[in-house]
Amino acid sequence: MLPFARVTVIGLGLIGSSILRATRSAMPTVRLTGYDVDPEVRGIADRIGLADDIADSAGAAVIDADLVILCVPVGAMGAVAAALADDLPADAIVSDVGGSKESVIAALRSALPEATIVPGHPVAGTEFSGPEAGFATLFRGRWCILTPDDATPEAATVRVRDFWEKLGANVETMTARHHDLVLAVTSHVPHLIAYSIVGTASDLEDVTQSEVIKYSAGGFRDFTRIAASDPTMWRDVFLNNREAVLEILQRLTEDVTMLQRAIRWGDGDALLDLFTRTRAIRRSIVEQGQDDAAPDFGRAHE
Amino acid sequence: MLPFARVTVIGLGLIGSSILRATRSAMPTVRLTGYDVDPEVRGIADRIGLADDIADSAGAAVIDADLVILCVPVGAMGAVAAALADDLPADAIVSDVGGSKESVIAALRSALPEATIVPGHPVAGTEFSGPEAGFATLFRGRWCILTPDDATPEAATVRVRDFWEKLGANVETMTARHHDLVLAVTSHVPHLIAYSIVGTASDLEDVTQSEVIKYSAGGFRDFTRIAASDPTMWRDVFLNNREAVLEILQRLTEDVTMLQRAIRWGDGDALLDLFTRTRAIRRSIVEQGQDDAAPDFGRAHE
Repeated sequence: MLPFARVTVIGLGLIGSSILRATRSAMPTVRLTGYDVDPEVRGIADRIGLADDIADSAGAAVIDADLVILCVPVGAMGAVAAALADDLPADAIVSDVGGSKESVIAALRSALPEATIVPGHPVAGTEFSGPEAGFATLFRGRWCILTPDDATPEAATVRVRDFWEKLGANVETMTARHHDLVLAVTSHVPHLIAYSIVGTASDLEDVTQSEVIKYSAGGFRDFTRIAASDPTMWRDVFLNNREAVLEILQRLTEDVTMLQRAIRWGDGDALLDLFTRTRAIRRSIVEQGQDDAAPDFGRAHE
Repeated sequence: MLPFARVTVIGLGLIGSSILRATRSAMPTVRLTGYDVDPEVRGIADRIGLADDIADSAGAAVIDADLVILCVPVGAMGAVAAALADDLPADAIVSDVGGSKESVIAALRSALPEATIVPGHPVAGTEFSGPEAGFATLFRGRWCILTPDDATPEAATVRVRDFWEKLGANVETMTARHHDLVLAVTSHVPHLIAYSIVGTASDLEDVTQSEVIKYSAGGFRDFTRIAASDPTMWRDVFLNNREAVLEILQRLTEDVTMLQRAIRWGDGDALLDLFTRTRAIRRSIVEQGQDDAAPDFGRAHE
């Protein structure tokens, strides 16, 4: 039994195109429709056969869907939902993949007051963007968080959970507020710091950009990967998860200040304590299959 | 023509054991001697055949060497040099792999006032430690920085350069002071921030450690790799490159504060500008072979 027979994806970037590929691979009989606001992206999607049909408008894309997944930057969710509101079938379920959930839920409910909405967020991605960057196994073994609330029928959540599990994801449910705090820690603040440190390094007067690049294998290059992620998507995440990001950033700033002081005063024990403690978390992440065990992320050394 | 006939490595961790393996692979006729202060490490090194001889003391290890490379934490360089001073041949060259150079040069010159010293730092590594973590190709295509000064004979620098090039490294020379500033940016501050953010995440009251681990694929896991590096080595680096680390940290703090303000006041343009700019640096790092081009560091997605 398939949870949905006709799935529409709006927004054909890394995540949207990966959902289409993964669905075709896991549920080949599902009829797939795609739409992107950018005609060039629609042309690529058509050429590489991402879906059975690439529609010319958001409305046309959803007209016979039973699941519609919005895969656009979180700041665009409300406008996209409004654009398809008139054509959305009454029994369709609307979901999304936005990285902030409280703001997205508010935007979707405002644009689609009558719709059945199951907000979602697959915690997966790469630093590449666009319809050709997606792949069918992106969600395998990763977690997808659903944030239903009192207005979400339980049966709808069950069907969306089933859909993601068929794509290979583990599914967890939590409140939107808790999601936003958890993701601020595990994703948003790490991205902000990575963007920031890359910016700082490229602005120095006494160290050239060429030197930063040459000697990046000392650690810096690990930060540049996530600092190469889609700029619009990330701008929207920070503007839409402001409170939680600022809260975690404040905590981090305090902790960095403590380390700064330990360095200034030569307190080696405080440094050693922290540096020893952080190894355990890495070990758990590898043990739970959320990262590779190979040294150096398995980078080739030839 | 080989630059050296008898090479001794003191300290058989990731870097020391990799130098031995790489030398055996590139220059099989060189006689290799190793020593480590830890008897257990010496036992492992002996069992896995890291060198022709694993000596029982630092003095015995250097007695007929023409190149001695110190591969110990930078805080231990002075004591190790003092321990082998009496047995060091007059014509031997002493080098090291320490991540801070001004402090190491001072320590070595003080312990070995008569020796020929060519300070070095191969910018390469993984998050794993110990004699079994090393491998022969670790330095291939990576940069090795030498920081000779007026007291270093040019001929000695040429031989050490030749040695590292035979191991597959690119070699650059610069002053110790400039090295310490460049590495503060490309390695030390990234490590400090990575350690700090992992610490912050594990100390939150409202987000469990289990949640941090489960949802780490959102970006956090990239930070945990370098935050799993050897604690003692890194404690020593921060205590010995204090001025440069604090200077770069101050710059980073200012830049993070600017981003924090942009988020608080909803200044999306400032965020988008930075996030767009940082992609170019990533591109250059990949183009110059200092990182993999594969998405997500080439992590497997099966």
